[in-house]
Amino acid sequence: MKLSRLGEFGLIEKVRRATPKGRGVLLGIGDDAAWVANPLRSSLVTSDLLIEGSHFNLKWTSLFDLGYKTLAVNLSDIAAMGGMPAYLILSLGIPPAFDSGDIEEFYRGIRFLAAKHGVALVGGDTNAAKLLIISACVLGHASHRPIRRSGAKAGDDIYVTGTLGDSALALKFLKSRSRRANRDSVRYLLLRHHQPTPRITAGALLARERLATAMIDVSDGLIQDLGHICKASGIGAQIWADKLPLSRAYRELAGTAGTRYALSGGEDYELLFCARKRDRGRVEKLQTRARVAIARIGACDSAKNGIVVLDAAGNPVEIRAAGHDHFKK
Amino acid sequence: MKLSRLGEFGLIEKVRRATPKGRGVLLGIGDDAAWVANPLRSSLVTSDLLIEGSHFNLKWTSLFDLGYKTLAVNLSDIAAMGGMPAYLILSLGIPPAFDSGDIEEFYRGIRFLAAKHGVALVGGDTNAAKLLIISACVLGHASHRPIRRSGAKAGDDIYVTGTLGDSALALKFLKSRSRRANRDSVRYLLLRHHQPTPRITAGALLARERLATAMIDVSDGLIQDLGHICKASGIGAQIWADKLPLSRAYRELAGTAGTRYALSGGEDYELLFCARKRDRGRVEKLQTRARVAIARIGACDSAKNGIVVLDAAGNPVEIRAAGHDHFKK
Repeated sequence: MKLSRLGEFGLIEKVRRATPKGRGVLLGIGDDAAWVANPLRSSLVTSDLLIEGSHFNLKWTSLFDLGYKTLAVNLSDIAAMGGMPAYLILSLGIPPAFDSGDIEEFYRGIRFLAAKHGVALVGGDTNAAKLLIISACVLGHASHRPIRRSGAKAGDDIYVTGTLGDSALALKFLKSRSRRANRDSVRYLLLRHHQPTPRITAGALLARERLATAMIDVSDGLIQDLGHICKASGIGAQIWADKLPLSRAYRELAGTAGTRYALSGGEDYELLFCARKRDRGRVEKLQTRARVAIARIGACDSAKNGIVVLDAAGNPVEIRAAGHDHFKK
Repeated sequence: MKLSRLGEFGLIEKVRRATPKGRGVLLGIGDDAAWVANPLRSSLVTSDLLIEGSHFNLKWTSLFDLGYKTLAVNLSDIAAMGGMPAYLILSLGIPPAFDSGDIEEFYRGIRFLAAKHGVALVGGDTNAAKLLIISACVLGHASHRPIRRSGAKAGDDIYVTGTLGDSALALKFLKSRSRRANRDSVRYLLLRHHQPTPRITAGALLARERLATAMIDVSDGLIQDLGHICKASGIGAQIWADKLPLSRAYRELAGTAGTRYALSGGEDYELLFCARKRDRGRVEKLQTRARVAIARIGACDSAKNGIVVLDAAGNPVEIRAAGHDHFKK
């Protein structure tokens, strides 16, 4: 049914009925505000605003994937602080010509990932808009002292979870509508792009065991996000290009781009963190419980040396476009 | 400076510097998530998505007022539950041609109201967009059991704070660019439209003294919002048109519209609530401490009688457009 026929309140009612009451939700969708329990003395809060055309393109993104990814990028922010996600507040601006089935598909994507992490959808706002606009806010519990961007010291090791560059390389294929788009490797990259895995367990373990001295999630590209850690911590960094964790699919398909997408592609949603040298063994051991590989990719340096990427021979690699600024061209 | 020159991170830095660290903020703007204290065992959460062209028009709304109102409408939702607001998360989509001074003006409006209520800006997201898009999420403390829409019973009194219709009548003047726009009365209405007063103290007192059986804030128009209470509570209602609280300015300028804007205009951000008959004296006494007038405007009825508006002689008044649906035309 077209939303212009179903109406705002019809849509809210549909969403409310399809939303199971989650853990800690004292009062969910349907009143002036939601009412939620705080099991702990402090909370983490993060939010993201996604706008059609600049953050996603409905030509190559299904509404299910869009729902999934909306929640995933926010969970990734909670993971980067070492917290556990709990509640989602979701506001949508929707073109009235949309079919209500499309919006239900979007919520299915949300629920698919929410169920995995025990996250409850507790409220939001729906409006008509010319473009699809998604605003999500996630509240999490901080069971341990959150890990900030500012605690790294020169000499610390630098690590990253999972693999880098898959998502950006997938986007290249989507934009070029490559004929190779049916190969398994491409399919793997597309899954990494559309359904990134927020590293909740890894982040929470690093916080609980006080292993990470600084942490961030890689959303704007490794080098740019590393830059945020360096600035906040007052350090520089050396990254070893040959140690960057690359998936088999990435190695097969990156071609002349080499490590470029891994260094500055963006949308990886992996955790980038620093840890003391003496904790190297403990970080390595953490991989099994965190259910994700953790690669040591560099070392923190003094601020005056800036950020340097070195190849296997120890020669500096030129860094191309360093991530993304939403306002600058 | 144009945002396209200042850049996303320049803007974030400007906002961060201008934002004082508020009460309960353990970690504010600048990391992956904010970290806030929970003094109580439960929280209230509300959010609003405001889109240029459908929720506001920059032709007649200053960026200061827009900032003020963005926060006000969310505080009003917290007030309608009987809670105390604490933290604001604000995401903006901004056209790159905007001047950074415009955005600073917007934040000045936010801070002006935030300071009055001890609300801290703790985080958010900034993006480039074709239109100005504002997404706000407010967290509040629920010091008492929140007041829902669903507790009213047939026979309960119906009350509203402040006066109704001022905001909608102001919008009519703005749209018609009336030559009378300089008169004091018009100026009063415009202030009511651009800088509504969230009824935090009244809402919190009604919750603390367990006086309101159901409550909502009037954002879509009295009749439509009363409809939400009636539906949630399973009741009907009688409203007495001659008892509607109207400002002197409204009486002077409404003309042939009579009580129409008061009944279904919208954007009043007053509290509409129900209370037991036997508590009539206690509600009346509350006005001084709540620092706002409270008018008894009707009575709850059984569901089968629906919502009826009566004039002074007891004859039914026809209700015109009953508020607003964002998707229906």
